Amino acid sequence: MKALVFRGPGQKALEDKPEPRLEQPSDAIVKITKTTICGTDLHILKGDVPEVKPGTTLGHEGVGVVEAVGDGVSNFRPGDPVLISCISACGKCEFCRRQMYSHCATGGWILGHLIDGTQAEKVRIPHADTSLYHLPKDADEEALVMLSDILPTGFECGVLNGKVKPGQTVAIVGAGPVGLAALMTAQFYAPARLIVVDLDDNRLAVAKKFGATDIVNSRGGDAVDQLMALTGQRGVDVSIEAVGVPATFAICEAIVGAGGTIANVGVHGTKVDLHLEKLWAHNITLTTGLVDTYTTPMLLSTVESKRLEPGKLVTHRFKLDQIVDAYATFGDAARSQALKVIVAAG
Amino acid sequence: MKALVFRGPGQKALEDKPEPRLEQPSDAIVKITKTTICGTDLHILKGDVPEVKPGTTLGHEGVGVVEAVGDGVSNFRPGDPVLISCISACGKCEFCRRQMYSHCATGGWILGHLIDGTQAEKVRIPHADTSLYHLPKDADEEALVMLSDILPTGFECGVLNGKVKPGQTVAIVGAGPVGLAALMTAQFYAPARLIVVDLDDNRLAVAKKFGATDIVNSRGGDAVDQLMALTGQRGVDVSIEAVGVPATFAICEAIVGAGGTIANVGVHGTKVDLHLEKLWAHNITLTTGLVDTYTTPMLLSTVESKRLEPGKLVTHRFKLDQIVDAYATFGDAARSQALKVIVAAG
Amino acid sequence: MKALVFRGPGQKALEDKPEPRLEQPSDAIVKITKTTICGTDLHILKGDVPEVKPGTTLGHEGVGVVEAVGDGVSNFRPGDPVLISCISACGKCEFCRRQMYSHCATGGWILGHLIDGTQAEKVRIPHADTSLYHLPKDADEEALVMLSDILPTGFECGVLNGKVKPGQTVAIVGAGPVGLAALMTAQFYAPARLIVVDLDDNRLAVAKKFGATDIVNSRGGDAVDQLMALTGQRGVDVSIEAVGVPATFAICEAIVGAGGTIANVGVHGTKVDLHLEKLWAHNITLTTGLVDTYTTPMLLSTVESKRLEPGKLVTHRFKLDQIVDAYATFGDAARSQALKVIVAAG
Amino acid sequence: MKALVFRGPGQKALEDKPEPRLEQPSDAIVKITKTTICGTDLHILKGDVPEVKPGTTLGHEGVGVVEAVGDGVSNFRPGDPVLISCISACGKCEFCRRQMYSHCATGGWILGHLIDGTQAEKVRIPHADTSLYHLPKDADEEALVMLSDILPTGFECGVLNGKVKPGQTVAIVGAGPVGLAALMTAQFYAPARLIVVDLDDNRLAVAKKFGATDIVNSRGGDAVDQLMALTGQRGVDVSIEAVGVPATFAICEAIVGAGGTIANVGVHGTKVDLHLEKLWAHNITLTTGLVDTYTTPMLLSTVESKRLEPGKLVTHRFKLDQIVDAYATFGDAARSQALKVIVAAG
Repeated sequence: MKALVFRGPGQKALEDKPEPRLEQPSDAIVKITKTTICGTDLHILKGDVPEVKPGTTLGHEGVGVVEAVGDGVSNFRPGDPVLISCISACGKCEFCRRQMYSHCATGGWILGHLIDGTQAEKVRIPHADTSLYHLPKDADEEALVMLSDILPTGFECGVLNGKVKPGQTVAIVGAGPVGLAALMTAQFYAPARLIVVDLDDNRLAVAKKFGATDIVNSRGGDAVDQLMALTGQRGVDVSIEAVGVPATFAICEAIVGAGGTIANVGVHGTKVDLHLEKLWAHNITLTTGLVDTYTTPMLLSTVESKRLEPGKLVTHRFKLDQIVDAYATFGDAARSQALKVIVAAG
Repeated sequence: MKALVFRGPGQKALEDKPEPRLEQPSDAIVKITKTTICGTDLHILKGDVPEVKPGTTLGHEGVGVVEAVGDGVSNFRPGDPVLISCISACGKCEFCRRQMYSHCATGGWILGHLIDGTQAEKVRIPHADTSLYHLPKDADEEALVMLSDILPTGFECGVLNGKVKPGQTVAIVGAGPVGLAALMTAQFYAPARLIVVDLDDNRLAVAKKFGATDIVNSRGGDAVDQLMALTGQRGVDVSIEAVGVPATFAICEAIVGAGGTIANVGVHGTKVDLHLEKLWAHNITLTTGLVDTYTTPMLLSTVESKRLEPGKLVTHRFKLDQIVDAYATFGDAARSQALKVIVAAG
Repeated sequence: MKALVFRGPGQKALEDKPEPRLEQPSDAIVKITKTTICGTDLHILKGDVPEVKPGTTLGHEGVGVVEAVGDGVSNFRPGDPVLISCISACGKCEFCRRQMYSHCATGGWILGHLIDGTQAEKVRIPHADTSLYHLPKDADEEALVMLSDILPTGFECGVLNGKVKPGQTVAIVGAGPVGLAALMTAQFYAPARLIVVDLDDNRLAVAKKFGATDIVNSRGGDAVDQLMALTGQRGVDVSIEAVGVPATFAICEAIVGAGGTIANVGVHGTKVDLHLEKLWAHNITLTTGLVDTYTTPMLLSTVESKRLEPGKLVTHRFKLDQIVDAYATFGDAARSQALKVIVAAG
Repeated sequence: MKALVFRGPGQKALEDKPEPRLEQPSDAIVKITKTTICGTDLHILKGDVPEVKPGTTLGHEGVGVVEAVGDGVSNFRPGDPVLISCISACGKCEFCRRQMYSHCATGGWILGHLIDGTQAEKVRIPHADTSLYHLPKDADEEALVMLSDILPTGFECGVLNGKVKPGQTVAIVGAGPVGLAALMTAQFYAPARLIVVDLDDNRLAVAKKFGATDIVNSRGGDAVDQLMALTGQRGVDVSIEAVGVPATFAICEAIVGAGGTIANVGVHGTKVDLHLEKLWAHNITLTTGLVDTYTTPMLLSTVESKRLEPGKLVTHRFKLDQIVDAYATFGDAARSQALKVIVAAG
């Protein structure tokens, strides 16, 4: 079968590869219908994630159809259309019992990372019963691919950790796909103001269309001043960091009001300054988190009821044969204006 | 000044009455601009609330302008446009410290109940600093009259006590003003389904317009069957009782699914059956509550940001001179299709 | 092997029976070391639980040693000493994902109910990975038998549902084993007063020894008056119903203060009166629940650290050969002063 | 009257000063019975808190007797024995409505900071109704002085922000008075392990006596290794920072396990490193906070019921005349082994 294979920093190729087989009683084999590319895949290609071994198929998102299941699988059978979670969860270990599936003793983020991923014709899914979800009838498959990772990431690590409440003022720093996912799902809680900060005017325009009440371009270096002015110098109730660099974290720190929350979503490669000399007395909560995907059933329900339309994030479409082009388009988002690209494998 | 005065069961009159005066350092005198009539006022007139003494001015809702304040008042001064809360709160007693303002040792629901109320040209507001709210600039006064009582009642006792969450199925039994307030504010939390139950087709049509995803007329006696069918026999996550009689409570009990919540909002005059022989094992939470109005600032913020449009509840308008007609219209809602009537005093 | 078998209402016998075998990949066979008898077993024998079929081995509590596991079991292997949970949980269904293991689609309370139970030399445990727990080293097995059912029941349905907090006043109505389990675990939260109500002076004396600050004998019919006097007429913050009849529920309702919680633990066979004509305005929360055993790891940790000593509940000890005598002793608790009886099978 | 007056960095004196008078309707004058010295007073004397003006009476803790009250005071009258909160709260502003009394628009920490404090014969207490508490009958005054500041600080900012739960592993870094207050109140929640870290063996011995299950001397620079070894390399569920320097914060960061909480209590004078490159994926919560004293009623209740014995923190006693000696003793804690010193003014 065809698969997009990591060949070491800077190198990838669409290759022929043997089909995956059931290895454990709890495994399923899923024939991929649609998959996508994540910012994390670009990080892997840059060499930032050294535990990914050359030869690994990339990708941790997708929808497909179950082809085979092990003896221990009881929730799914061949022919079932399914959503693949980016997080594999055994459902049995101490962390799974606490719904911290991201820290599952034998799972967590392993697809396209420690084992072969979803940018292929087929994929083996460990712990299938607790890592796959039935698709709703008449589901929009492209929309649901967004539920593999970015929607639960923005929702859990940004909106829920941030404890967004009706009437509040929320800032989201970073309008990439995950920041936009936070923007969409923050609206579940009717905040009064949703301010989005980014360097890219196109993304800010998209944010406006997706429900931002205010947008701030941070290019000029005065984002903090603009945000404080917008909030009458009170700061925001919730600031969501959706980039992952010290400069954006510094904005989030500077704009959070007393009693507020900083919810970190971004993947950081270096330490940041925490200004406890100011914040110690401000009754601040700061949260971090890898997505646990514990809200996937809730998100599926909001998609079914049309409260959430994640399909709006899809800007480009490719066939699996063209996945190298898809990477080029996604990797050059500033020019291509790509948000999420769909790669059709089926 | 003119005031609508309770004269004993079945009797009320628009009378001339001395203007209220400051009695305590924490009092304010408010000139009423707009007030309204509550279902509770009808109960008082029926004689159901015996602690209301003949001679009392009715009404516990309204907006107005501060005319005078006592020495202890620091948040308001003459000329300030204000929203009057139906609950007076000293802010100092044990219950106020717990935000259970409805149980304030020297406050709670006293306006138009234990002291003269708001259906008059002026009213004395005890504990003004913690019982009045500044109106936002350019406020729609009619809309804000809805925030004196019914919006916080539906929101706090129905939606928040019920712990409505994104993706859930919620039933509201009773589509009167408070049930509709619960319907409006439940949408802050993006439930997947919002089912409204009532006997009156007009109110159900209004509910549909206000965001109900499904409506059920309970006239035929098969409301429970209809609701269970609508939910695939699983029952609802949250059932909100917004009527106050055993029959509607029985519906709420029968339709709540395992792990769900029954949030009682209705004012009950008699005991009900609680089927613990079934519910003991169903992990149910049941809540009761008089409104505490602790969410008034949050609701004001949602009105300012247009996430909430309570003005839609207003169906009829009268002058204070016509308040007896206003009562007639409001009291005959089945025929008049009245939801809330505005009485302009200013 | 020997097993205590239900033979229809009023009839039980210690019989020879074939040993259980692995039926599903997720099964384990456990050799019982110690088991016990629950009030529910007495109910079954009275004929109150008609879904128990004659021929079923009774019992849903115990500790033992794993003898065999199915292919799908990964947390346990033969030789492991284990605690058996009274609740079997697949860990995969919608309810298990919400930690409502009692409502597991293919589990819940099935041991000694829908399938053969633990009052035998061996038992088959479905969903072993998520229904068994490793025993701590040097564990007191008798103490841990109490963690199969009554400790998590008293803790989850009484203390946690009741939201007991430091400094509060808590009443526990019923000083049977489950009421005493609530009494022990309520002390995790440092309430100021822990008032226990019962008809039996011996059990009240035990309650005093186990940490009750006040005891009330309800025989005279004035329990409510005594409790209101003890609380300066304010009522309690939390009232825990641990009996399951209308009279004790009525006490719980009558003594709960404004803003308080009634946590129902008792198994009810009939409906009760809920006085909403009084409670509607008192901001009360009422909870029901079958135990989910989601706190078993937490409880094991408190036993290991000696914060909890459940072995104190054991009053009598028998061999499996004498289990019919054990039933007699346990069933005549008023005379025998039995709390929990240990039946040693190993 | 006599008062301990700040005279600029490094300078203080016991001076004669005019008695305070009522200035606002909400004021009370309290005759001090007993007061104490806080680490913050030492900081002021070092010049670290520049907003304290020379001439200010120091001190923000104490118990006393009400001498006079303004017209707006309704909860207290002359002769009432009272506990003085270190935080003054108007009870009316937006922050007070959210129980963030530390951020009260006209209060917060002002005693011995922006206005004259409690190390004197008398003190003026603004917002008396919401800043004083009635003493329980037969109260141990020395014990209750500990409730002005350090007990609520350790409890709210350490234990409650840290969300300590039964069975958990908790580390407290810093065994000064506030760290010990956290240690005492953490035991309200029955953690399995309570590990205390400090440089001073005497304080560690005290911690052991006060309920620490393990102690770690951090002098050798291997505190993190010791803590990780104590927890089987899993880290702690809650780490409480009770010192306020980068080195102790670094320990807290390094030892918190996935899903855990870092609760900062210490007063920091400089920024710290936050290792988001590691923590971003660990589902950590970090909290900061100035004490709000919203738990003072709860703490009074636990003292009354003997669940809490804060008097154990008192090591030395002085008269107001000897307050300069009291400062010397308290300031040289390493040698004097002082925890809290009581200064009797009455």
